[in-house]
Amino acid sequence: MILELPRGTEHFGAVRFHDVQRVYELDSGMRKFTTKAREAVATISSGDIRKINQKMAIVIPIKDEKLKLLEGVLSGIPHDCHVIVVSGSKRSPVDRFMMEVQMLKQFNHFVEDEILLIHQQDPGLAEAFKNVGFDSILSEEGLVRKGKAEAMFTGILLAKMLGKEYVGFVDADNYVPGAVHEYVEIYAAGFILAESPYSMVRVSWVYKPRVVEDKLFFSKWGRVSEVSNFNLNRLIESYTGFGTDIIKTGNSGEHAMSMQLADLLCYASGFAVEPYEIINILEQLGGIGPAPPQVVSSGVDIFQIESRNPHLHEEKGDEHIENMLLSSLRAVYHSPICPQKIKNSIIDAYKNHGLEIQEELVKIKPPSEVNLNNFVEELKQKSQTLTELK
Amino acid sequence: MILELPRGTEHFGAVRFHDVQRVYELDSGMRKFTTKAREAVATISSGDIRKINQKMAIVIPIKDEKLKLLEGVLSGIPHDCHVIVVSGSKRSPVDRFMMEVQMLKQFNHFVEDEILLIHQQDPGLAEAFKNVGFDSILSEEGLVRKGKAEAMFTGILLAKMLGKEYVGFVDADNYVPGAVHEYVEIYAAGFILAESPYSMVRVSWVYKPRVVEDKLFFSKWGRVSEVSNFNLNRLIESYTGFGTDIIKTGNSGEHAMSMQLADLLCYASGFAVEPYEIINILEQLGGIGPAPPQVVSSGVDIFQIESRNPHLHEEKGDEHIENMLLSSLRAVYHSPICPQKIKNSIIDAYKNHGLEIQEELVKIKPPSEVNLNNFVEELKQKSQTLTELK
Repeated sequence: MILELPRGTEHFGAVRFHDVQRVYELDSGMRKFTTKAREAVATISSGDIRKINQKMAIVIPIKDEKLKLLEGVLSGIPHDCHVIVVSGSKRSPVDRFMMEVQMLKQFNHFVEDEILLIHQQDPGLAEAFKNVGFDSILSEEGLVRKGKAEAMFTGILLAKMLGKEYVGFVDADNYVPGAVHEYVEIYAAGFILAESPYSMVRVSWVYKPRVVEDKLFFSKWGRVSEVSNFNLNRLIESYTGFGTDIIKTGNSGEHAMSMQLADLLCYASGFAVEPYEIINILEQLGGIGPAPPQVVSSGVDIFQIESRNPHLHEEKGDEHIENMLLSSLRAVYHSPICPQKIKNSIIDAYKNHGLEIQEELVKIKPPSEVNLNNFVEELKQKSQTLTELK
Repeated sequence: MILELPRGTEHFGAVRFHDVQRVYELDSGMRKFTTKAREAVATISSGDIRKINQKMAIVIPIKDEKLKLLEGVLSGIPHDCHVIVVSGSKRSPVDRFMMEVQMLKQFNHFVEDEILLIHQQDPGLAEAFKNVGFDSILSEEGLVRKGKAEAMFTGILLAKMLGKEYVGFVDADNYVPGAVHEYVEIYAAGFILAESPYSMVRVSWVYKPRVVEDKLFFSKWGRVSEVSNFNLNRLIESYTGFGTDIIKTGNSGEHAMSMQLADLLCYASGFAVEPYEIINILEQLGGIGPAPPQVVSSGVDIFQIESRNPHLHEEKGDEHIENMLLSSLRAVYHSPICPQKIKNSIIDAYKNHGLEIQEELVKIKPPSEVNLNNFVEELKQKSQTLTELK
């Protein structure tokens, strides 16, 4: 992979937000480069990418997606990555989870990926959380809450159980296996560029094609991202005192973290999870309050890398879009570091939708607060759906 | 890359048409496979793919495509392949060819691909053909004819000039760089599977998404392919006496050949070029007439490999589709091996479009009939547009 070096970096306490980097070429091959080209861009060899892949788990949160899409996504994930599927799919009247297991088994007969599967509403999973005293992921009914953040959090713990150093996320609704492959290579490339062991790589999309009348229009921004990035940038501005548009990946579902960073963060329930990761990094590590000294000394690297492939995914409809939009605003609003004037403008945005902000942001505590050994032991005993394919 | 082994092969003289093979996984990584999986599928290491890539030129015939699409296509072609752009783009009132050169220079400043560029209507190119006595590619005005086949043929000769063993083609109108990357890896995988030095790899598409009302519909077949494959299969049936649907890639613009095979074939002018390659292989090497003894003894391998990525390309409109359809029927009709009953049904198809078949198929003679050394010498002296980027 050949990609740009970041053209700018915005500092916020210990956090380094790097400006968007374009991918120039997907496959840098074996040929040698002259020094000129080596200095202008980062050329990441596929050997180095593979070394990272072997230390990385890719978590696919899935909820009633078409099986064909899931199969396509799997076919795009590099073989060296361990795949973790956390399914919140229906179990009745049709058992979609069982269909997923069957499809994966059949597919895996030929490719021999390492795949770990679990159902999010597995009562044994909830029990394992309960028995290690970790309640912040549980619903009132005593199960793991429905929602993407909860699936991601479960995936992070399973990746820790596997001893992985990196964890990446890929949505299950992607139409383009080649794009999925690029995302994972982008994660690895970012980790190779990172100077800190606390690092995050977020994918920025060059285009999000959508159907406009009878044609495909390759729009530059997703509808939610525009609003979400705007508010995150205003939050940063209000502390640094300099206008910025550094954040371009506020809602990026396609992102990855070093386990050391993932371990520290709180996760916002539901659809606020992606923008809230940035907010929580600012809250904890942005220098406003005290931060763990080892993080302060090495800093946090956040890369935003623009994929070459268009992001072509299943259309979820306007209600889903509005949900994501409002969740992302709520995550900014409820942050203790959010200044009043940004709060006011978010209140106005809610009013425009005929709504009022009330509920607190529901959060899951950091993975580091789960006693991993006990959790794994409990899970292996109690889980009814944990499945290992090899 | 992990792909299926062919489940069946249809023999036609020395020609082996292999049944469609699916790609299971884009990136087979570094992990080892058990024997079970190794026997069920072909696992092609990326090291082996890269060795082929270094011996392969990728020809991009381009005609007034958007520069962004060309750049995307380039970003998907593995760095190890030599790229040959043969442009038939407008030179006035705007000089689109010059825009292409500029864009490629700028892009290549960072990636250092090996790129060779030429304009199809370069008078020096035509003169080089004329001076080696190769007229079958020239128009009445004495220039190289407009048309995709002529661009491809020029690309094949330039690939020969570079000493390449393989030549592949990629259309310039592809929206998905990851798909382009997969196509080229598919070419390499096919050549690795081939037992004969006379081999061809054709890409079959799992889906060709098109916009239907306000949604994307992932249709299985392109409109032209359906008719074209049907007629090619009928042609094969009429000789073997067994019904078949082995040909599924009659119109595949995404295909590649070993230079030894490319060297032997005649090319049909214009849009009939892809189906006619199959017809010409049957005519020359199908055992109906005498074939070169070295080809008879090693045979010809034709692989059809189904890509994982959807084929999402610029819509060319109904006139283009009808043109391709009729060209492809004409290629079957005019073949000396086409039986009368197939001819009759093609006459009927033309009548349904309110047309009559008249013109002969215009063909370009095989590359082997060009005196390469003389041609290259002439070209280097006379060409005004041959450009080498490094």
